Amino acid sequence: MVEVHGRRQVLRAAAVTGVAAAVGGTAALAGPVAAAAGEDTAAAGGRKRRIGVLVYDRMTLLDAIGPAEVLSRLPGHSVSLIGRRRGDVRGDTRHGAVVADYRIDEVDHLDILLVPGGSGRGATAVVEHEPTMRWIRHIDARSTWTTSVCTGSLILAYAGLLQGHRATTYWSAKDELNAKGAVYVPERFVRSGKYVTAAGVSAGIDMGLYLSALLADDTTAKAVQLALEYDPQPPFDTGSPDKAGPELQQLAMRLLLQSQH
Amino acid sequence: MVEVHGRRQVLRAAAVTGVAAAVGGTAALAGPVAAAAGEDTAAAGGRKRRIGVLVYDRMTLLDAIGPAEVLSRLPGHSVSLIGRRRGDVRGDTRHGAVVADYRIDEVDHLDILLVPGGSGRGATAVVEHEPTMRWIRHIDARSTWTTSVCTGSLILAYAGLLQGHRATTYWSAKDELNAKGAVYVPERFVRSGKYVTAAGVSAGIDMGLYLSALLADDTTAKAVQLALEYDPQPPFDTGSPDKAGPELQQLAMRLLLQSQH
Repeated sequence: MVEVHGRRQVLRAAAVTGVAAAVGGTAALAGPVAAAAGEDTAAAGGRKRRIGVLVYDRMTLLDAIGPAEVLSRLPGHSVSLIGRRRGDVRGDTRHGAVVADYRIDEVDHLDILLVPGGSGRGATAVVEHEPTMRWIRHIDARSTWTTSVCTGSLILAYAGLLQGHRATTYWSAKDELNAKGAVYVPERFVRSGKYVTAAGVSAGIDMGLYLSALLADDTTAKAVQLALEYDPQPPFDTGSPDKAGPELQQLAMRLLLQSQH
Repeated sequence: MVEVHGRRQVLRAAAVTGVAAAVGGTAALAGPVAAAAGEDTAAAGGRKRRIGVLVYDRMTLLDAIGPAEVLSRLPGHSVSLIGRRRGDVRGDTRHGAVVADYRIDEVDHLDILLVPGGSGRGATAVVEHEPTMRWIRHIDARSTWTTSVCTGSLILAYAGLLQGHRATTYWSAKDELNAKGAVYVPERFVRSGKYVTAAGVSAGIDMGLYLSALLADDTTAKAVQLALEYDPQPPFDTGSPDKAGPELQQLAMRLLLQSQH
């Protein structure tokens, strides 16, 4: 605490305004501090390990941005959003969009693939788009880790990648996951071989921290958790179907259907 | 559970593929189900209440997308991302971008304003852009709720809106918040009058659920929590500075400086 505050004092003195001091990042200061940070956890050989997030229309934005935010703080790794086309990719509620910076046909290799979930229409469109499914299988063939959030695991299962693997998915999608050859496990995130699957939507943040420990080390992952101040304190305790009970389960499904387009 | 599974069976039978059943949302089915959902929680008079998220270069993407994801599930509300210009708005790590669908000069009124945090350079650029600061004050003058995540509260404070208000911010920014006239409180989210401020980055999700209860009701907020399967189980317990201790605090600041651009 003392040393951090000491650094804050330096940053504040150097910053144009108080705001600039808040999370650091003035250009003049970023250099030397960055040079001291986390070099021992970077990928060997100087090449950044590449993390790619498949983004697609009607995906659930938080499925992608949650773990992307976590993983983008790791030294020695880059994170890219990759879509069928470059440009806007609208989420399943139409209320927001992210930007695909690369097309799938521009990306031949990823160290880590992450497939987010989406609405039924969104995920179905991916499964029915043979070039995307071929790309997923191609990337998976050489990836170190292939991962998913929410119904993204159904997409991996449809690609034939989760046969016989323990895996998880959105709570209402477990039967579909089992039907495609995976073995559903009701956990927050599940590792089976090189496949790491997360439960619904927000579970991608938890999985992102788990992956951070795999990709770097526990200390770095713990620091990333603090960097994102991930000390969850939801005002209710209804985040799993068992805790919520049948009436909230019904209402949750209705809210999803109503909010999706 | 039984009724939800019953509905899943219907969806599955109707869907083109199993994926379509997973989170519902086939066009044919969305209509009647949506009609039954949550109409009693919608805003009175048929007008949707408008939630606007200010997005800006070098903001922290999860600050915006976390609560936007939560709030986009509320019946009777719309969520928009609003920037200085329409189009791509890159986050503080350059690894991803979201899309501003509206310019600030196109938006004269919001029921709820949400200001995310960002890197020091990002937040400073907002504070130094007088048209944006004028817009924040203008929107705030008629908003029902004015809210922030992370260092977004510093932007509100620089706009002069938090004088004497209890408020929170990113853990390392508390001195700056106090210096601008607010009274820092080390809580996950803080309400003072019509101002609701959240702690760092991921705290926006918790605040989003709290706002959901204010805007709709507890039952709806609880169902949204399940809809996003927000049952947090981080693999570590280092999400607050006190839990993390001084060494992880230093490393977290270094990772932030290193990852920002």
